[in-house]
Amino acid sequence: MAGIAFTKGHGTENDFVLIPDPEDRLTLDEELVRSICDRRAGIGADGVIRVVPASGDAVADGARWFMDYRNADGSLAEMCGNGARVFARYLVHRGWEAPGAFEFGTRGGVRSAVVPEPGTFGEVSIGMGPVTLGPESWTDLAGRHWSGRAVDVGNPHLACFVDGTAGDLGELDLTRGPVFDPAVFPAGVNVEIVVPAAAGPDGVEGVRMRVHERGVGETRSCGTGTVAVAAARLAALGRTSGTVDVHVPGGQVRVDLATGDGRVFPESVLTGPAVLVATGVLQF
Amino acid sequence: MAGIAFTKGHGTENDFVLIPDPEDRLTLDEELVRSICDRRAGIGADGVIRVVPASGDAVADGARWFMDYRNADGSLAEMCGNGARVFARYLVHRGWEAPGAFEFGTRGGVRSAVVPEPGTFGEVSIGMGPVTLGPESWTDLAGRHWSGRAVDVGNPHLACFVDGTAGDLGELDLTRGPVFDPAVFPAGVNVEIVVPAAAGPDGVEGVRMRVHERGVGETRSCGTGTVAVAAARLAALGRTSGTVDVHVPGGQVRVDLATGDGRVFPESVLTGPAVLVATGVLQF
Repeated sequence: MAGIAFTKGHGTENDFVLIPDPEDRLTLDEELVRSICDRRAGIGADGVIRVVPASGDAVADGARWFMDYRNADGSLAEMCGNGARVFARYLVHRGWEAPGAFEFGTRGGVRSAVVPEPGTFGEVSIGMGPVTLGPESWTDLAGRHWSGRAVDVGNPHLACFVDGTAGDLGELDLTRGPVFDPAVFPAGVNVEIVVPAAAGPDGVEGVRMRVHERGVGETRSCGTGTVAVAAARLAALGRTSGTVDVHVPGGQVRVDLATGDGRVFPESVLTGPAVLVATGVLQF
Repeated sequence: MAGIAFTKGHGTENDFVLIPDPEDRLTLDEELVRSICDRRAGIGADGVIRVVPASGDAVADGARWFMDYRNADGSLAEMCGNGARVFARYLVHRGWEAPGAFEFGTRGGVRSAVVPEPGTFGEVSIGMGPVTLGPESWTDLAGRHWSGRAVDVGNPHLACFVDGTAGDLGELDLTRGPVFDPAVFPAGVNVEIVVPAAAGPDGVEGVRMRVHERGVGETRSCGTGTVAVAAARLAALGRTSGTVDVHVPGGQVRVDLATGDGRVFPESVLTGPAVLVATGVLQF
C-alpha cells in the first residue's frame, strides 16, 4: 500500500479511513481494505471511504463527489450515516466543497449534507432519506425477551423501548446476536434497546440506546439505528414529525423527522460530530 | 494534538505510535497518550514511543537516542521488546542511526539493536538482557490448573508447557486473568501457555504460545514473554544456551540465549519483524 494518502476520522466513535482519489485511479480490493482496517497491523477502522468524483446519474442530481464506502471486511456497503458526516467534513476541509449545503453520491443514492466552516467544530448534518414504520415485533437478546417496533431506514431495524434507567442499559450483555421473527425480518435486523431520557433544555425529546448491528455485533454508534429509534419514539408519542436527541455509547446525535402520515416520515436528517483525527501516507 | 508528527508501526501485531521529538520539546501527558491510543477516537495503538535524544548515563554508554515508552493507559513503562524493534527500525528509516548495530536508551537501561538496510524487510534484533530461571509454580487460568516455571526477564513470567496441539491452544478462553501464587509473584505475573512445535528446517527448536499480560489481558504478542518461554524450553531440555523459534498469535520471533550456568542466561536477543505502516500528522 505504498504511497496512498489517507485521513482518519470518526463520528460518535464510528471510525473511518478516508482515501482521497480525485482522479479515480485507485483499486481497493478486499485484501487492501482489510489490511488498512486491521486495528493492529494496519491503521484500524470500521470502514474505508474512497473519495472520488461523482459520475452518471449522481452528477445529474447535483453531486460532485461520490462516497465509495467499504466495510472493514472489504465488502461494499451502500451508505453509513456516521461515515457520511466524516466524508462531508473532509470535502470541506480539503476545499473540494464549500461550507454549507451540498449533495453527494452514495451506492444508496444521492444524499445531502450541511457542513460548517472549516476549522470550526460545529456538527455536520446528513439527509438520511425516508423512514417507514413497520409492525410490532419481538427479539430475544441479552437473556431477555423484548417487544419493539420494526422501522425501515433503507435497512431493517427493531427499536425496543424499555422502562428503566441508563444504568440498566449499561448492564446488558450484547455479546450474542438477537433471535428475531424471520417473517418480519427475512434479511436479518439491527436491534436497538432504548431507554427514554429527560428532555433537553430546549425541550427536545431524549433517548439513550445501545445497538446490535446485523453481521457486526454491538457498536459504539449506528447512524441509521439512531434515525430508526427517533422515528419509533415520535410514533409512540403519536407525533407525525419532530426532533429527538439520541445518546449512543460513542456520543450524541440529533435526528429531525419531517411531517408524514403517521407511518412514513418522508425525510430524516442526522446531525452530529465528525472529527478528523490525523492525516498521512500509507507509505511502507 | 494539533501538528504532532507520527508514524504507526507494529511488531508481531503489537502496535505503536512513534512520535519523533528530536529537540525534546513535547510533553506527553496521560490524557494525550490515551487519546492517541484510543482505537476509535484516535489513531489506536498498544503504546506511544516518543523518540528523543539520549541524555546522561545512556550517552556515556553509547546511546544516541532514547525510547520514551508509555502504555496505552498513559502510564510509563520501562521497555517493550516488540516496541523496541519498531523504534530501532524507525531510527534507521529516518537516517538517525546507520544500519547495523547501535545502542539506545530505555527506562530499563541501555539496549542494543541490529537493524538491516532501510527499505528492506529484514528482521530487527534487540538485546533483551539477562534471563533468570526461578522455581516451579502454578496458575489457574482458562478453567484449568497449570504447572509452570517462573522466569524473570526484568519482569515476572510463568511459562506453562502443556502436551497437545496448536489447535488445543486456540480453544483456550483467556478472557479472565490468572490465579497464581503471590509468594512467588508478589507483583503479579505474565502467564504463557506453551505447546512444543516441530523443529524448523534448520533444526531450531520451536514452540507455540498464547500469553496473558499482567494488567492488560491476552495480547497478540509479548516480547519478554517469548524470551521467558524460550529460556524455560531450553532449561527443560537441559541446555545452557541455544535458539528457539516462538510462534505467537501475531506472528513469529526468534530468541537466542547466550551460554549460562543453567539458572541464568547472561544475555538474550529477540529477533523479529518490525513494520512501519503509515506516517502523518495528528493535525486537527
